[in-house]
This record gives sequence, C-alpha cells and structure tokens, in this order.
Amino acid sequence: MELDFVRWLTEEIAVKGSVAVGIGDDAALVDMPADSQLVVAADMITDRVHFDLTLHAPERIGRKALAVNLSDLAAMAAKPLAAVVTLNLPRMANAAELARRLTEGMQPLAERHVCPIVGGDTNTIDGPLSISVTVLGSVEPNRAWLRSGAQPEDRLLVTGKLGGSIAGHHLDFEPRVDEALQLARNYDVHAAIDLSDGLALDLSRMAEASGVGAIVESELVPISQAAVELARETGQAANPLGDGEDFELLMAVPFDTAEELIAKQPLDCGLTSIGVVIEDETLLQRSGNGVLSPLPIIGYEHR
Amino acid sequence: MELDFVRWLTEEIAVKGSVAVGIGDDAALVDMPADSQLVVAADMITDRVHFDLTLHAPERIGRKALAVNLSDLAAMAAKPLAAVVTLNLPRMANAAELARRLTEGMQPLAERHVCPIVGGDTNTIDGPLSISVTVLGSVEPNRAWLRSGAQPEDRLLVTGKLGGSIAGHHLDFEPRVDEALQLARNYDVHAAIDLSDGLALDLSRMAEASGVGAIVESELVPISQAAVELARETGQAANPLGDGEDFELLMAVPFDTAEELIAKQPLDCGLTSIGVVIEDETLLQRSGNGVLSPLPIIGYEHR
Repeated sequence: MELDFVRWLTEEIAVKGSVAVGIGDDAALVDMPADSQLVVAADMITDRVHFDLTLHAPERIGRKALAVNLSDLAAMAAKPLAAVVTLNLPRMANAAELARRLTEGMQPLAERHVCPIVGGDTNTIDGPLSISVTVLGSVEPNRAWLRSGAQPEDRLLVTGKLGGSIAGHHLDFEPRVDEALQLARNYDVHAAIDLSDGLALDLSRMAEASGVGAIVESELVPISQAAVELARETGQAANPLGDGEDFELLMAVPFDTAEELIAKQPLDCGLTSIGVVIEDETLLQRSGNGVLSPLPIIGYEHR
Repeated sequence: MELDFVRWLTEEIAVKGSVAVGIGDDAALVDMPADSQLVVAADMITDRVHFDLTLHAPERIGRKALAVNLSDLAAMAAKPLAAVVTLNLPRMANAAELARRLTEGMQPLAERHVCPIVGGDTNTIDGPLSISVTVLGSVEPNRAWLRSGAQPEDRLLVTGKLGGSIAGHHLDFEPRVDEALQLARNYDVHAAIDLSDGLALDLSRMAEASGVGAIVESELVPISQAAVELARETGQAANPLGDGEDFELLMAVPFDTAEELIAKQPLDCGLTSIGVVIEDETLLQRSGNGVLSPLPIIGYEHR
C-alpha cells in the first residue's frame, strides 16, 4: 500500500514552485531564494484530539494538517517553500483511499500558497490516524517575526475575530500567510505568534519570551459570529480569551504603526487593537468599566 | 506532558550549527550556506515494524529514527543542516520519560553530523510509538546525487558490507554522510541510493529511475559477518540481495572513476564493485561460474 501511495504522489502531485526534484528520490531538492534564512515548523494532528474521522471528511482533515503549519510560517512572516507529510494510517480496508483523500484536501491550499508537497512517508498502525506535516519557508535574514520582540508600550493587534472555532473554523480557517507577508513588507512588527491555544495562553507565551507583561482590554477583543451563536446555544458567555484554534495572528506593534494600521485597515480580515504591552511581567485584563484584574491563563494545553 | 517536553527540549537541546532560532518559537530559523539548494527527506519508524519497544532501548530507537533520515541525505550527497522530530507516544505512565530517552538517543548522532534538532511536536495516542523525522540538508546547486543518473557501462559500487542487519545493524548503523561528502568532493558519481529495502529492490529503483538495467556479480557482493552468522544459525544461505535496512550506499560510477576508487579505497568502510549498468532495462545476476539469470526483486516493501 505504501509503495502505491508514493507512486500515486509521484504521478499526481505536480512539482511546482521552487522544487527542483520532488517525490520519488531519496530526498527532495528545493531552490532557496538568494540571501534568505530557512524557516522550519512541524505540527502533527491526531484523530479524536484535533479532528474526528467519523465526523469530518478526510479532505478537510488533510487541509487542516497543512493549514496549522502554514499558520506557523505566517507567525514568522515567512514565505512558504515546500511541505513534507508523514501519515500514520489506521489499519482499515480503504487506508490507501484515505491517504489519497487527505492529500487531495491539502492540494488547493498548497497550490494557493505555492507550498508543494515534496515528500513524505506512510505507515499503517493499530491506532488512530495522525498526520505530521513539516513546512519550510524563507525569510530575508533577520526579518523573521519572533515571539521575543515585544516591547513596553507596543500595541497588541489581532487579525480577524476570535472564539467559537469548534463550530468549524478549526478545520476551515485561512492561515494568515498573505496577510503576514503584506504587513512584514510595509510595517514594523516587533513580535508575533499564531493563536493556536487561546489568546490568553498564547499571549502569555509571547510575554514570557519577551520578558514583558500586557493589559488586554477585554471588551475590545473581536468575537466571531460562531462564538456568539455558541454562547446563545449553550447559555454561557462567549470567552474568546480561552477558545483554542483561532489561528489568527497576535502581534506586538509600535504605537505609531498600530495607530496607522488601525486607521488604514489594510487587511481584508480586519485588524483590531486589543491591548498594550507593559514593562511589568504580569498579565492583566481591563473590563469595560475600567476595572483591572489578573488575566486568567486558560487555553488548550494539549498541543 | 507535551508542553513539559517542549520546555525540556528548549532548555536541554543546545542550539548549534546553522540554527539562528531553535525550539520555542512558532518555527525555527536556520542559516543556509550561500548559493545552495535545500535537500529535504522524511522517514517515519514505528513500533513492531522497524523496532520493538519491548526489546530495544529507547535511546537506540531514537538514534535509528534520525539515522535512517541522515542516510537519505547521504544518498543525495547533502550536508546535514537540521532535523525536526514528531513523536506519537503510546498512552503509558512514563511517556514523557520515553520522549526524553528517544531524543537523548538522537543527540550524539545529531552532534556528530552537526544536525541539530530544531523543532517538533508530540501527541499521546492509543497506539504504537512512532517517530517521524524530517531532515534538512544543503548541496551546491545541481550537485546532488540522484537515482536517475546511472549510465550504461557505469560500475555499481557499494559501501560497507551487506545483509544480516536484523542482528543489530538496523539500529546501530552509521549513516554514510561523511563518506558521501568525501566522495562527492573528489569524484564523479552518476547516481546513488541508500540501501534501505534490500540491494535487489533498491537497485531496481535506481535502474527504473535511470532507464537502464544492470548485471550484479553475485559472488562479489560483500557479505557482513552478521549475515554469515545468521546463515550458520538458521542453516539457510546468506542472501544480502534481499536483506533490508543495510543503510549502505549503492552508487553508479563511471568506469575509470570506479577503477580508481577500488584501487585507492579512500573510505574506512570499504568500497566494493558489485556489477555494471547496462542499456537493456533488465536486471540480471551472474554467478561465480558465469551463468546469467534474472535478478529476483526481493526486499522489504513495507517502507
């Protein structure tokens, strides 16, 4: 089965972009842009943790496996180059068909971001489906966004809207690759992280890496329609601070740049200022009536 | 557990070589040598297929997961740059300890080949341990060894000795990275492949990719001591043509270069001429008494 899958990949997955030699040799060869640093991220998603094979079409699952990795490249402001995919397939009659559908689900996203799948490996196991993707990207030297660059008085900006991703967004989200590249070309961004485990937890990671704190203006956090509907259905308040898998970008941006970005709104997905970086290494939230309280660090720790 | 593991990796695994930013951000940053192509390979090994967690120490298993990938870089004559590791850990009490031991087993090999582990991901599953490694390397543009370059009248050379790897070599082999780089610097090599699935099967892949055939001189194939001992124990003839996981290199080399290499023997592991490339797209073996017969394409198809 595995050899058939590799043969199918070799024949069906067109080699594009910067790929000189693709699937079918011992390794793939990828041309790098001149004078660039290589960016590498690897994320794995597993059945019943990050998706449910009994509920979700394999194409959506495959797409998610690639998208979560492209989101990591976006968080570094890196341009995608190529991806490799390793599949642990559950022992089942149509495992080869499953592998094909997973990969086919990745293809439109791979093509849109010029991030061809250049290699991989598969195994059949007595266990759940898991999909491991490694993405490669490039940045100009010392131009990557890191988590560690946030400075006191920076504004905290987020793309899009947050919360309620369980309703479907966690599978079908658009990784903010183009948005990150557009911002990186034209604006100064001090630090960035993609929101995979909830705003509060991911903000705490950026703050820790940067040696700073932050105040989040709770009422300014943009809430998705899905979160509002979920709140209505469950009768609980929407809490986009703790919902995971938003896959939006959180950025720390100098005050003047943030003012300009909020006024100009250069991104279709929207940019919202949700708080400020402070020198004190503490995380606070301010409610609409101005009351400051500790920010609860809630979020998905499973990743 | 996963967060603990990432934290441990961040603190314990020293960032070395070309790595500008390692584990702990959304992605790693790796400096590329000027004017080079990127080489990418991904191989996964799984419990009860490629190793046995009840028999083998986690350190040896982790080492193998990295070594099989370094062997792919060797087959391209690529210089290692960095590796990423994703672990599917079986649900067990000491899964974090298992993850540590697997990674610690990789470290000496990673250090020796200046191939730091720059990132990764882990999940706990109701299933067997599997370890997926993606390695990155570099080559000067258009200098990578491919499977597809073999030409009629090339000599077929192998490094080391073949067969019997099940006795331990499949875990403890030395990937031929340094040997490949040494040969690539000084000699013309038309094509190469690493012997992961048995000489016959891997030769058939090189022949197919190159559009050629080959004659293997059966009696010239160098047989490992382990294969000889295994043959004695089992009472069956040693057959290094079909034993998998040798992880030696098979190369197609121009006649004059092959003569020089065999005479000079520049590698400590030894180089043996085992046959010749022919124009006819057929694979033959010649026995000691000169009888030609079809080469049986046996080998491990599971990979």
